[in-house]
Amino acid sequence: MNRPTDDIGNRSDTSRATAFSDSVFAIIITLLVLDLRVPDVPPGRLLSGLLEQWPGYVAYLASYAYVAVVWLNHKSAFNRVKESDRGLHWVNFSVLFTTALLPFPTAVVSDALQENDQQDQRVAVAFYALIGALLCASWLAFFHYLARRRDLLKEEVSERHFPAERVRALVGVALYVVAGLIGYLVAPLAGLVIFVVLPVFYAVTSGGLYQAPLTRRIARRPPASGS
Amino acid sequence: MNRPTDDIGNRSDTSRATAFSDSVFAIIITLLVLDLRVPDVPPGRLLSGLLEQWPGYVAYLASYAYVAVVWLNHKSAFNRVKESDRGLHWVNFSVLFTTALLPFPTAVVSDALQENDQQDQRVAVAFYALIGALLCASWLAFFHYLARRRDLLKEEVSERHFPAERVRALVGVALYVVAGLIGYLVAPLAGLVIFVVLPVFYAVTSGGLYQAPLTRRIARRPPASGS
Amino acid sequence: MNRPTDDIGNRSDTSRATAFSDSVFAIIITLLVLDLRVPDVPPGRLLSGLLEQWPGYVAYLASYAYVAVVWLNHKSAFNRVKESDRGLHWVNFSVLFTTALLPFPTAVVSDALQENDQQDQRVAVAFYALIGALLCASWLAFFHYLARRRDLLKEEVSERHFPAERVRALVGVALYVVAGLIGYLVAPLAGLVIFVVLPVFYAVTSGGLYQAPLTRRIARRPPASGS
Amino acid sequence: MNRPTDDIGNRSDTSRATAFSDSVFAIIITLLVLDLRVPDVPPGRLLSGLLEQWPGYVAYLASYAYVAVVWLNHKSAFNRVKESDRGLHWVNFSVLFTTALLPFPTAVVSDALQENDQQDQRVAVAFYALIGALLCASWLAFFHYLARRRDLLKEEVSERHFPAERVRALVGVALYVVAGLIGYLVAPLAGLVIFVVLPVFYAVTSGGLYQAPLTRRIARRPPASGS
Repeated sequence: MNRPTDDIGNRSDTSRATAFSDSVFAIIITLLVLDLRVPDVPPGRLLSGLLEQWPGYVAYLASYAYVAVVWLNHKSAFNRVKESDRGLHWVNFSVLFTTALLPFPTAVVSDALQENDQQDQRVAVAFYALIGALLCASWLAFFHYLARRRDLLKEEVSERHFPAERVRALVGVALYVVAGLIGYLVAPLAGLVIFVVLPVFYAVTSGGLYQAPLTRRIARRPPASGS
Repeated sequence: MNRPTDDIGNRSDTSRATAFSDSVFAIIITLLVLDLRVPDVPPGRLLSGLLEQWPGYVAYLASYAYVAVVWLNHKSAFNRVKESDRGLHWVNFSVLFTTALLPFPTAVVSDALQENDQQDQRVAVAFYALIGALLCASWLAFFHYLARRRDLLKEEVSERHFPAERVRALVGVALYVVAGLIGYLVAPLAGLVIFVVLPVFYAVTSGGLYQAPLTRRIARRPPASGS
Repeated sequence: MNRPTDDIGNRSDTSRATAFSDSVFAIIITLLVLDLRVPDVPPGRLLSGLLEQWPGYVAYLASYAYVAVVWLNHKSAFNRVKESDRGLHWVNFSVLFTTALLPFPTAVVSDALQENDQQDQRVAVAFYALIGALLCASWLAFFHYLARRRDLLKEEVSERHFPAERVRALVGVALYVVAGLIGYLVAPLAGLVIFVVLPVFYAVTSGGLYQAPLTRRIARRPPASGS
Repeated sequence: MNRPTDDIGNRSDTSRATAFSDSVFAIIITLLVLDLRVPDVPPGRLLSGLLEQWPGYVAYLASYAYVAVVWLNHKSAFNRVKESDRGLHWVNFSVLFTTALLPFPTAVVSDALQENDQQDQRVAVAFYALIGALLCASWLAFFHYLARRRDLLKEEVSERHFPAERVRALVGVALYVVAGLIGYLVAPLAGLVIFVVLPVFYAVTSGGLYQAPLTRRIARRPPASGS
């Protein structure tokens, strides 16, 4: 990795990484709407056709909210980064990769819930939960990388920040696994409801979850004095 | 919401928010063209097939103009914002969300007007009007937020600006509701015409509607002296 | 249009306009590939299926090159703009609008040339030429606006620049009309070949066409001294 | 190419070129997911339907990794560029063009491997290899252009850098040709595996391949002293 010729590009400011990521998130969030289709119904049945697609709207809402939260997380994380290197690009690519997958399980869930097969619905919800958990896992890798690379961060960033974010990502993995199990074992619709609620939960807590007693205990880090 | 660890990211400049929004608008405005499809006609009928799709072209034009106006509004609003916070991001997400929905009712209207069922056409136009009104409602939330958060605005921004914009958004909600009712109760085509005219109206007035006597009376705000 | 409340946003730097336009061009140029589809052929016929789609590849190439030239034109024009106002945004929207249409006639031409109906092929090529001419016409409006708004331009921009660009756009309109006529009256394939050649011609001349004797005579402007 | 009127736009900083390219890469990497479709299976068979699509997932992964590496390459190259001119834009367009093609062979490979026809699978893998090789060839043109245009580069860039990158691109062409031959002559699946491995190989070596003895010998350039 050491380059005798020149060192340009090994480390760089984060402007292109954030611009690229913003574009990716913007496309993902907008592609989701492509799965809202004109219902294929006989003449005169458009209204009921539109209404019967409601699981598609709920799935759309869940994924839209999820990507919105990912964007906020991403913005909040990169605000703390001074310089990016190749490793950071790859953990960033893993976040973009799993986020870009989201329209796929969204379409699967939306389709399955508009059919009547219970087994398919269970599979679909479990599949969505799997991708949701993978997305949280990619954040875990992302935060873990930054938790160990103080040199890439801005000086004023608290030492506790990224270890605490790591906990939040781990909680996310767990929550999507639980949602998948509930959706698979109990009722697919219950899983779908959780998919809508989870991003809201994340949005609300993203400012301060790691100050909560529980996660503080998990992170086992003393409060930084005067940061 | 208070973070003992560090305060980075709670407040930030608006560059990523506008870049992300620009990408979203660009994608929405470009996705619309995906609903202009090669007509599925027997050999030798391409010309008539293309001509018979005219409602699709009108719907495309209406939605394109709408998104263009949304972009101008967005640019004009963020030009006045100094700093964004989490609340502003969420009202911004609500504007992006409703704008991103637009290709869906556009396709529904375009399809229905190419079929012969009057009832479906009424439903389709009413549906478009509903999303159009929701989009104006999301602007209402956006402007309302900024009308109450002077601290996020640039110093030179008139105190009257965002309250007046709020009125304009409210007028928009009303106009789309009226267009929906006309389209549903009177004639779908009349509704479609209004959908094309409305963004034009907005584009023309966006510089000065709130100086008009009517809206001034609604806003009930004395003219700011020397702004 | 005069705003007693504040003047922010009436005039602004061009950064968001160019960022938005870049995103739109990027999406258009990339959407074109969506019309390259896996051929729907019986097993064992993939190779011939891929080869038989060659008109699609040519159409793709023509449109890709066209959008690339539009981007270069756009960049070159905005490099000369100091400030944008609402009127410039609208002529810019008209350029983006006609460019965004391009994937539609591209798909129509690609489809028609893969069928065997001569009449459809003529219509398709004429349709492509129509949109190509409209795109040049939107540039005409764009350059015309800037030719008359010296106050929006950077100081060092030659007075002759945008009037000369106007001529180039007019020549483009004429060339696409001619290509459409040749494609319709003579042979569709000849039209398609012209569509591929035209952007190349534009790319080559975009640096200096207006210095050519012909266009100089049309523009009837004395050479600016010492610009 | 010399313009008596003004010189603006002939040379320019690279900000719009990189912003445009970032958008294009972002769209390509995200469009890939559109080929992951809800399986068209009878009720109750969703799980096996999802599992049987595994070649689609592998193809998606291969192309995603390829685009990610292209983006890293692009970023690394443009970090060394001070100014862009028209020629650089055209070699850049050629890189974007071949990258934008990638979703097409990805879909072809993904489809063919889900069918049972050996001949089609061979064609599909060879087709993917062809586009992969073309993409490396466009990089070759890109690096070749910069290897000869020292005046466009930043001062601190080593003279050896772009000649060495050229070698790396040439190796890439060769590797994709070999992968295509193996896929065509030996086994399609072997080709697919190589498609996944190649970007990883590129990612790992992109920091330092040209320091390796082999490529140094090919490039036949003495080490620059003190760069």
